[in-house]
Amino acid sequence: MIYVSRKEHFNAAHKLYNPNWSKEKNLETFGPCANENWHGHNYDLIVTIKGSPDPETGFVVDLKKLSNLIRNEIIERLDHKNLNLDVPFMAGKMASTEILAQEIWKILIDKIKSISNYGMLHSVKLYETPRNYVEYFGE
Amino acid sequence: MIYVSRKEHFNAAHKLYNPNWSKEKNLETFGPCANENWHGHNYDLIVTIKGSPDPETGFVVDLKKLSNLIRNEIIERLDHKNLNLDVPFMAGKMASTEILAQEIWKILIDKIKSISNYGMLHSVKLYETPRNYVEYFGE
Amino acid sequence: MIYVSRKEHFNAAHKLYNPNWSKEKNLETFGPCANENWHGHNYDLIVTIKGSPDPETGFVVDLKKLSNLIRNEIIERLDHKNLNLDVPFMAGKMASTEILAQEIWKILIDKIKSISNYGMLHSVKLYETPRNYVEYFGE
Amino acid sequence: MIYVSRKEHFNAAHKLYNPNWSKEKNLETFGPCANENWHGHNYDLIVTIKGSPDPETGFVVDLKKLSNLIRNEIIERLDHKNLNLDVPFMAGKMASTEILAQEIWKILIDKIKSISNYGMLHSVKLYETPRNYVEYFGE
Amino acid sequence: MIYVSRKEHFNAAHKLYNPNWSKEKNLETFGPCANENWHGHNYDLIVTIKGSPDPETGFVVDLKKLSNLIRNEIIERLDHKNLNLDVPFMAGKMASTEILAQEIWKILIDKIKSISNYGMLHSVKLYETPRNYVEYFGE
Amino acid sequence: MIYVSRKEHFNAAHKLYNPNWSKEKNLETFGPCANENWHGHNYDLIVTIKGSPDPETGFVVDLKKLSNLIRNEIIERLDHKNLNLDVPFMAGKMASTEILAQEIWKILIDKIKSISNYGMLHSVKLYETPRNYVEYFGE
Repeated sequence: MIYVSRKEHFNAAHKLYNPNWSKEKNLETFGPCANENWHGHNYDLIVTIKGSPDPETGFVVDLKKLSNLIRNEIIERLDHKNLNLDVPFMAGKMASTEILAQEIWKILIDKIKSISNYGMLHSVKLYETPRNYVEYFGE
Repeated sequence: MIYVSRKEHFNAAHKLYNPNWSKEKNLETFGPCANENWHGHNYDLIVTIKGSPDPETGFVVDLKKLSNLIRNEIIERLDHKNLNLDVPFMAGKMASTEILAQEIWKILIDKIKSISNYGMLHSVKLYETPRNYVEYFGE
Repeated sequence: MIYVSRKEHFNAAHKLYNPNWSKEKNLETFGPCANENWHGHNYDLIVTIKGSPDPETGFVVDLKKLSNLIRNEIIERLDHKNLNLDVPFMAGKMASTEILAQEIWKILIDKIKSISNYGMLHSVKLYETPRNYVEYFGE
Repeated sequence: MIYVSRKEHFNAAHKLYNPNWSKEKNLETFGPCANENWHGHNYDLIVTIKGSPDPETGFVVDLKKLSNLIRNEIIERLDHKNLNLDVPFMAGKMASTEILAQEIWKILIDKIKSISNYGMLHSVKLYETPRNYVEYFGE
Repeated sequence: MIYVSRKEHFNAAHKLYNPNWSKEKNLETFGPCANENWHGHNYDLIVTIKGSPDPETGFVVDLKKLSNLIRNEIIERLDHKNLNLDVPFMAGKMASTEILAQEIWKILIDKIKSISNYGMLHSVKLYETPRNYVEYFGE
Repeated sequence: MIYVSRKEHFNAAHKLYNPNWSKEKNLETFGPCANENWHGHNYDLIVTIKGSPDPETGFVVDLKKLSNLIRNEIIERLDHKNLNLDVPFMAGKMASTEILAQEIWKILIDKIKSISNYGMLHSVKLYETPRNYVEYFGE
């Protein structure tokens, strides 16, 4: 078992805002992250696949195929977007890094088999800033 | 003459959109950067002061004072903001990295003397992403 | 279960020196790290919390609160300090990165519940330099 | 149990090319990585040792000794080399990052005890580029 | 006048080898960089354009167009290539970072006007490793 | 003319303390940097040489020789040292990054000719932290 990772990036606008709460409670809870006019980030996304290498290629997964899969399934939907308004799979959800990482996992989990017979999804790591990040292992 | 630099950061939403143009021309010119629902970035800002060191401190400028000046004058106005909607000094201007760096220069140029007798503003360097950045020297 | 991390930094002086040993044995064991006049580092500290997100905020832990907790409990006691002389919780201990990470864990383990109902301390990662670092999971 | 890591680097040429396949199948599978005239990378190698600290030194492992071990056993054999042609332990193997990390593990696993009574090899992490990397834990 | 920069990357194999010298003199001069079986690097290339911003876009140069220009004219010819064997514009030249940066300048200098009315080429910065790099300003 | 740079690193302890001043004035001026028990940093040092490439090697300067020169003349005297106590060329001087960069320049300026017929010293850039740095051009 070896773990293979690929980093991609996107940028997006969002706000942290619970629509069931008053404006005051949102500001009290989320501070400047609740700015109704939005703010944004350059996100880094690292997807890790685990498995044993294919003896003929030496690859657990072809990283070019993994890069293309992440770009087509995730980056295309998130890059230069508003996470609260433009992203169907985030509709009705809090636009936190935690929730976004979990939703990215759900999209990728069944698609890895289309690009690799040897690997399966191990983790999704998402940097909101160089100092704030989350990692999700699917359970 | 020695050059002393301090890096600060902020994040913000923006769009690139010329209000004198049609929506179509904006999309054609700016592509996904013209998304009307905004996108955003983690910006890194590097301010450089030049001068000779004060013989009693060894400092061209006290970097703690420079950090506080940048935070009070610039970061406070930009962090977790929408550059097009929330920032008076950007009103009516294109929210490009070029224009933003020039406006930051204009704010800082006269304020350095309040924190240093030995240094003057040399440059403002602004990273929109780790791969896209501008530098302005005031002329 | 999702893992949420926050990076903070501090700088400090220290030496690696076992007071039960001769000066010669210290120099032989620790080399230039045993310099009696001290040396120092810029440390990066990454604290990771694990838990499930609060459904109302999308947060396992509010990273602003986690940042404040780390600053108040750890950075305040270590930044611009001498790890051997100025830090009560390191008194009588070897000032290695390993021991420092374990002591930081002991301070934080019971304080996370004061800032989060959903998360618990998972790990303390401490970089002494960009090329030397340790990680501690509490057991 | 604490985890201690050391980063080293080397650069090397390689190609991804299965000699049992036609040139066409190699190009179809590996794309530009199959260029018969080689390409190359700056590799970063992170070796992690786990154990409890020696109470007299505060060290799981002396990182100077670990650095020397990695340099003597690994970097010396790989730096400024062609992974396909110049490296006996890679002879007849695919020069993928996965296989290289596993071979580095095999070399180091029995040598850690020569530099530490308190630690054992935990993982080998190998960056081929800042965006592509693998990690191997020996099983 | 404002300076706008874009970073791209490529990887390549090369050797430092003067064909007018003996093998011994090459090894004496270039050490392991003269390995006849090649070695390689991940290169980072930063291209800087200077000019005043177009008042209608706020851009000195559209960084998407600059990125495409660099990729089409430079990266396409260098990525996953052997600098000594596969790159016509390097034929008969020493494959040092200095010479490569100068040749990249020569290719780009006349092409910037095709993507910007407001900017001109200012510099080409080329990292061979994170610790070794050159910068060329065309004179 | 091309500019060639090499990065090296060292770590050291220091304090900012003017011995002609009272303890109170030092604390008021330098804050925690005046801690009498010292603090410290991981410093990054970038030395830039300018010149035209030697046509036979393609080098302005052999970066291996430049690295060795910097290590022998600078790193050897500063690494794991106390800048105020252990470094003869800093004796009686303020241990600020500005002053240290100027002293490093003075040591290197006449030594470059011993390793290169084609280059001369252009600048010394010194990072005290990733966010605080100075650059000196000798005038």
